[in-house]
Amino acid sequence: MSNIRVIIAGPRGKMGKAAVQMVESDNQLELVACIDRKYNGLSLKDIEGLPSLDAQVYTDARECMSEQDADVLVELTTPENGYVHTRLALEHNIRPVVGTTGFTQEQLDELRKMCEDKGIGAVIAPNFAIGAVLMMQFSKWAAKHMPQVEIIEKHHDQKLDAPSGTALKTAQLIQDVREKQQQGHADEKETLQGARGADVDGMKIHSVRLPGLVAHQEVIFGGHGQTLTIKHDSYNRESFMSGVKLASEKVMGLQTLVYGLEHLLD
Amino acid sequence: MSNIRVIIAGPRGKMGKAAVQMVESDNQLELVACIDRKYNGLSLKDIEGLPSLDAQVYTDARECMSEQDADVLVELTTPENGYVHTRLALEHNIRPVVGTTGFTQEQLDELRKMCEDKGIGAVIAPNFAIGAVLMMQFSKWAAKHMPQVEIIEKHHDQKLDAPSGTALKTAQLIQDVREKQQQGHADEKETLQGARGADVDGMKIHSVRLPGLVAHQEVIFGGHGQTLTIKHDSYNRESFMSGVKLASEKVMGLQTLVYGLEHLLD
Amino acid sequence: MSNIRVIIAGPRGKMGKAAVQMVESDNQLELVACIDRKYNGLSLKDIEGLPSLDAQVYTDARECMSEQDADVLVELTTPENGYVHTRLALEHNIRPVVGTTGFTQEQLDELRKMCEDKGIGAVIAPNFAIGAVLMMQFSKWAAKHMPQVEIIEKHHDQKLDAPSGTALKTAQLIQDVREKQQQGHADEKETLQGARGADVDGMKIHSVRLPGLVAHQEVIFGGHGQTLTIKHDSYNRESFMSGVKLASEKVMGLQTLVYGLEHLLD
Amino acid sequence: MSNIRVIIAGPRGKMGKAAVQMVESDNQLELVACIDRKYNGLSLKDIEGLPSLDAQVYTDARECMSEQDADVLVELTTPENGYVHTRLALEHNIRPVVGTTGFTQEQLDELRKMCEDKGIGAVIAPNFAIGAVLMMQFSKWAAKHMPQVEIIEKHHDQKLDAPSGTALKTAQLIQDVREKQQQGHADEKETLQGARGADVDGMKIHSVRLPGLVAHQEVIFGGHGQTLTIKHDSYNRESFMSGVKLASEKVMGLQTLVYGLEHLLD
Repeated sequence: MSNIRVIIAGPRGKMGKAAVQMVESDNQLELVACIDRKYNGLSLKDIEGLPSLDAQVYTDARECMSEQDADVLVELTTPENGYVHTRLALEHNIRPVVGTTGFTQEQLDELRKMCEDKGIGAVIAPNFAIGAVLMMQFSKWAAKHMPQVEIIEKHHDQKLDAPSGTALKTAQLIQDVREKQQQGHADEKETLQGARGADVDGMKIHSVRLPGLVAHQEVIFGGHGQTLTIKHDSYNRESFMSGVKLASEKVMGLQTLVYGLEHLLD
Repeated sequence: MSNIRVIIAGPRGKMGKAAVQMVESDNQLELVACIDRKYNGLSLKDIEGLPSLDAQVYTDARECMSEQDADVLVELTTPENGYVHTRLALEHNIRPVVGTTGFTQEQLDELRKMCEDKGIGAVIAPNFAIGAVLMMQFSKWAAKHMPQVEIIEKHHDQKLDAPSGTALKTAQLIQDVREKQQQGHADEKETLQGARGADVDGMKIHSVRLPGLVAHQEVIFGGHGQTLTIKHDSYNRESFMSGVKLASEKVMGLQTLVYGLEHLLD
Repeated sequence: MSNIRVIIAGPRGKMGKAAVQMVESDNQLELVACIDRKYNGLSLKDIEGLPSLDAQVYTDARECMSEQDADVLVELTTPENGYVHTRLALEHNIRPVVGTTGFTQEQLDELRKMCEDKGIGAVIAPNFAIGAVLMMQFSKWAAKHMPQVEIIEKHHDQKLDAPSGTALKTAQLIQDVREKQQQGHADEKETLQGARGADVDGMKIHSVRLPGLVAHQEVIFGGHGQTLTIKHDSYNRESFMSGVKLASEKVMGLQTLVYGLEHLLD
Repeated sequence: MSNIRVIIAGPRGKMGKAAVQMVESDNQLELVACIDRKYNGLSLKDIEGLPSLDAQVYTDARECMSEQDADVLVELTTPENGYVHTRLALEHNIRPVVGTTGFTQEQLDELRKMCEDKGIGAVIAPNFAIGAVLMMQFSKWAAKHMPQVEIIEKHHDQKLDAPSGTALKTAQLIQDVREKQQQGHADEKETLQGARGADVDGMKIHSVRLPGLVAHQEVIFGGHGQTLTIKHDSYNRESFMSGVKLASEKVMGLQTLVYGLEHLLD
């Protein structure tokens, strides 16, 4: 089986660097070019802090896609560029694998139509950490059978918002499969305000912030005489790499746009 | 919706007691009789240690099923009686929900044929703890995408065998979806024998035994920069109750034999 | 070494039953009598639900202590009786081991003086679970060196108050050794109220309530690139037994009143 | 209070880099020079990958200590150089804080004598992660009262040896305070070899190796109806920084050699 030829847009960002490293170490994927705001015409190996790879850098995305015979675009830039690059890729019969968020429903509909007209695939995923995506899917499933649930998410103390986006997303997935219900004792009383956490339809969410921590979440389901816990620990940016790899491979077999890594995890 | 009328076989065993208590507290289920080795003709409320319920006790299972107009038999006795009672129930158009293990493939085939001929359901489940069954199903799913996995199971120090049956069953389910593969560093060395645990096709299983513990298992999947952990804690015998309840309800809508609670957990 | 002869006050309560069972199974301790509100003159073995032991029951505590040649009184009744029984015991040269709470500072001072005048010991402990007491002591110690800390306590969903008494006590011990300090990012924002938990001088406390859980607490300390977690899981009432045993043995060597099991855990 | 003036030996190693960063960000400590195998006469800011600090680099340790008026030497090179640098520092009335291991008992005795003759302090510590050192101290304490214990250590799958050095050290500390004892059921049977882990005087050690993991250990103590768990998670090299900082401050008040960070954690 021949290699999958990859263009990476945004190779100097945190996710981009991890993606370059992943493609470099993978047998099946081959990096052919990068799209960047700077360094037009240079090779990756000439840019400080990037691996010593022969892959030409373009500042003009259209030029890059026209000149290079690529199979997949890994798009890791900004929401503004994300849509433009994705559209361009499809026009050039290059399958987009997109980590950028912020697409409108209209944009998604239009991109899906382009995919289906051309008969090629696209993957847009707000979260490429396979473990996190599995945690959310398992939580949705478990909540059908063990509907009493609380979420504890733990992050480093430089995080500004509580709860985390992943915790809110998990709660939302659980809302899809269970009715709103009161949890805890009916006469429960907080002697210190906030002890029982934030409330989403009866589900409680607790946010821990401490130095040392990275990004962790556990979803705890309680039932008669038992608990079931689904826990994801993310230790560094590499956690996104296996999701990007999976999507880059799977997108080759798709004929439509898939939104969310979970649809590739059968 | 009318009640589901239940016979319990084995009401004085540990699981039987939990089942009696569950049926008693459930709105949908109604206990109509019990099958026991002793106490023929008594009512449950006359037997020490059982709840104060009006349900006649029979030592003759056939007599019980003939006299009582029941929907479901909850069978929690011994492997020897399990098959006999299950067969008898189907003959009386009573749907069996069976926690007994040890059926042969021939027996299962025969019972499935009886179900289908009569167009009624049966559920045989070696494990009624919903949380444990979900843990195993999630593990099987996760292993497809994060194939590096280790299992830690923890039990009280009166347990004789290591690893536990649930750990072995989990490993077996994972074997179904992943190739045998070496884990750990190729040159890994145990400076104390046994440190790396038991080996099943490269998967490692670790068995902890301490006073105070009840029955716990965690399945840990490792990937780039992340781990996913699925953990079940069983605190007491009640953990079986919700599975018996689920099976008693679902069996009413089945027209064949279902082996394993996982098939009722869609 | 001769046995330690024990009187148990309150043998039919939850802690009392566990204490009877512990003394029964211990080689060093010997149960000689019980003090109860009922059953005067009976033997323990004549009371339903208690072990088959030859130990006379008294409703009159003074009579019991006069007639029986005991070394230790294990007092597990009510706050009102607790003080009376403790005083009576000291008058009879019997060393009290007291699980009752609610003593005033005046009462404690008076009892301590009685102990020292007579040269015998007494132990009063609000918590006899050795693991919980160690968790609190370790937390106090750890907070000196890793002052950023959050507490997560988890209990069954029948618990009324949040946070738990143990969580509050732990926070209080930590307050003794660290300055009040803000935790988390200075610009941290709760997008859902309560997410960051209850606040005690900057420490956060999170209370989880789910069916299946028993009584659990973890204290998490964060520092540069690391976390330290001290966790106690209590699975049932037996967790108090080892503390009662320890106190019953240690009290024999004391010449004063000791308040808190932690002072016996050197 | 005036600053503590620090020389760092080995600024380009993993620990050295973390030490430079820590001293840079600390208000109390001031970096005055570095000892390195290369770059004699340069300033730190001229060396790629190091922070932009004005601190002269010396390849000759003696010259460095003579020219610079330093209070503390942070020694993070090799076992061979460690002893030489430590001795040199004491000769120059500079207090050594040493992360190098491999000193012989004779060397330690000699260095201690030098400290006491001069009336200045020294700290030699095989582990500067405060959380790990506390975990070991708490484990030693807990084992006195809850002697049944198992250790689970988890590391990335590039680790060669199992069990880890920290697990072995923890077991050794526990051996100091408890008698050898059998754990688990007397008739316990491994149906798969290695399931019960490695054995140290009855204590069991289990080593998990998975990609994604960094360096984690939990020590679990079991008792009647309860467990106590002490867990340390190290996420990156920064975990050593707070220990180096603590030692650099405390060493100023010592008049002898202290071996092991635990003696500074009162």
